[in-house]
Amino acid sequence: MGDKLNIFKIGGNIIENEEELKQLLYLFSNLEGHKILVHGGGKKASELLPKLGIKPRMVNGRRITDSATLEVVTMVYGGLVNKNIVAKLQALGNNAIGMSGADANSIHAHKRPITKIDYGFAGDVEGIDAKMLCNLLNLGLTPVFCALTHDQKGQLLNTNADTIAATLAIGLSSSFQTNLNYCFELNGVLKDINDKSSVIKNIDSSSYTKLVDEGVISAGMLPKLHNCFEALKNGVREVRIGNLGLFENSTTNYTSLVL
Amino acid sequence: MGDKLNIFKIGGNIIENEEELKQLLYLFSNLEGHKILVHGGGKKASELLPKLGIKPRMVNGRRITDSATLEVVTMVYGGLVNKNIVAKLQALGNNAIGMSGADANSIHAHKRPITKIDYGFAGDVEGIDAKMLCNLLNLGLTPVFCALTHDQKGQLLNTNADTIAATLAIGLSSSFQTNLNYCFELNGVLKDINDKSSVIKNIDSSSYTKLVDEGVISAGMLPKLHNCFEALKNGVREVRIGNLGLFENSTTNYTSLVL
Repeated sequence: MGDKLNIFKIGGNIIENEEELKQLLYLFSNLEGHKILVHGGGKKASELLPKLGIKPRMVNGRRITDSATLEVVTMVYGGLVNKNIVAKLQALGNNAIGMSGADANSIHAHKRPITKIDYGFAGDVEGIDAKMLCNLLNLGLTPVFCALTHDQKGQLLNTNADTIAATLAIGLSSSFQTNLNYCFELNGVLKDINDKSSVIKNIDSSSYTKLVDEGVISAGMLPKLHNCFEALKNGVREVRIGNLGLFENSTTNYTSLVL
Repeated sequence: MGDKLNIFKIGGNIIENEEELKQLLYLFSNLEGHKILVHGGGKKASELLPKLGIKPRMVNGRRITDSATLEVVTMVYGGLVNKNIVAKLQALGNNAIGMSGADANSIHAHKRPITKIDYGFAGDVEGIDAKMLCNLLNLGLTPVFCALTHDQKGQLLNTNADTIAATLAIGLSSSFQTNLNYCFELNGVLKDINDKSSVIKNIDSSSYTKLVDEGVISAGMLPKLHNCFEALKNGVREVRIGNLGLFENSTTNYTSLVL
């Protein structure tokens, strides 16, 4: 087993909040060793769509990506958000390199098949080019991934950032001791959605099933936790969910997931 | 002297024309050896600005980049145009990687000082990280640069793509036999702006001065040719200006520049 690798996925609400993003990037830049950042797009794409006369469409919390929407998310995720994060990390002394799944053919994906719902240009991830990513990490680079992939036939695809983070963690877990961190606006998975301090410190496979059955885990958290357990089943050492407490090694101000 | 490196800068009008861009990327992807693509933004940024209520402002053919304009060019150059070119090159079997000057800290720049004109967030290029770019090229990657740099303090900067191409060519000329190619809508530098077939086949330092004095070279071509001669003076082997004829080795359907 090789060096440590920390993968952080940061969510939309953090990206929106300039002060919080600044603090997060500072803490991230101070992490030692190999690391990867994966970011969602935040509300900027949703704000831009109506300005350009495009109506945002969501089904089951996932965006329906027609070609006009794809143009906007490519601009916002791949351009505005990604390049600004890269420039800010550079200022903090981190040699960041912004990437989509198309860049260096790092993530392999295909357009989601049409079943009951046509999600449009949405990407389902297949895997990664682990060798190339190892090469980039070994050059001292910090890849910063936006939520875009490609089908290797020239088509860009809007892709869930949580899934990208989990796929990267799985694909790199044979080369590195990989930790996967989901950083969002709450301090962890909450027992009571109305009580922000009710963080569940530890979840394992059996308590997860119980929490789902009891309806404790909200609909929005289900795909995130599904990704976490998929990652753990496939070689990722540790998955954590929380806010800036994720960067504090001495406390457990986040939810830790194990098999 | 090392391997050959071909640097191609492609202009706005080619990016606008889907069929021409497709043909160009096909020819570019078939070039053997190391290569780098640098692209401008085309008219898409200018089209998007008024839609978002931002008035485009140009002085001496250069855009005045206020913060709202910078957001738009970051979206269009760094996101929409860059990621689509990368995905298309990947489909053609080229392992492209999209970059701004901030990515991998590849290009060092600073905000243009305010003199008579305040160009806003416009970048003046200082140099490149040649070692990192050599590493990326030696991994088999084809960097695709958009016209954005950073000041290493977290600020993105709108930067002339011709200058980026020349700076890359100069910085890499001690590691590679570097050819710099400016690909745009005309077949080369024209003797008569109204006669598209009046391509001047060869220009050297002395004929350049003569052509400028005689007013043969139009105002729009002057900064481009200035960049070319700067590149030649600083180690670049050959600079060529033309259209798709640049990819035809057997003909001279372009303008060739030597010292």
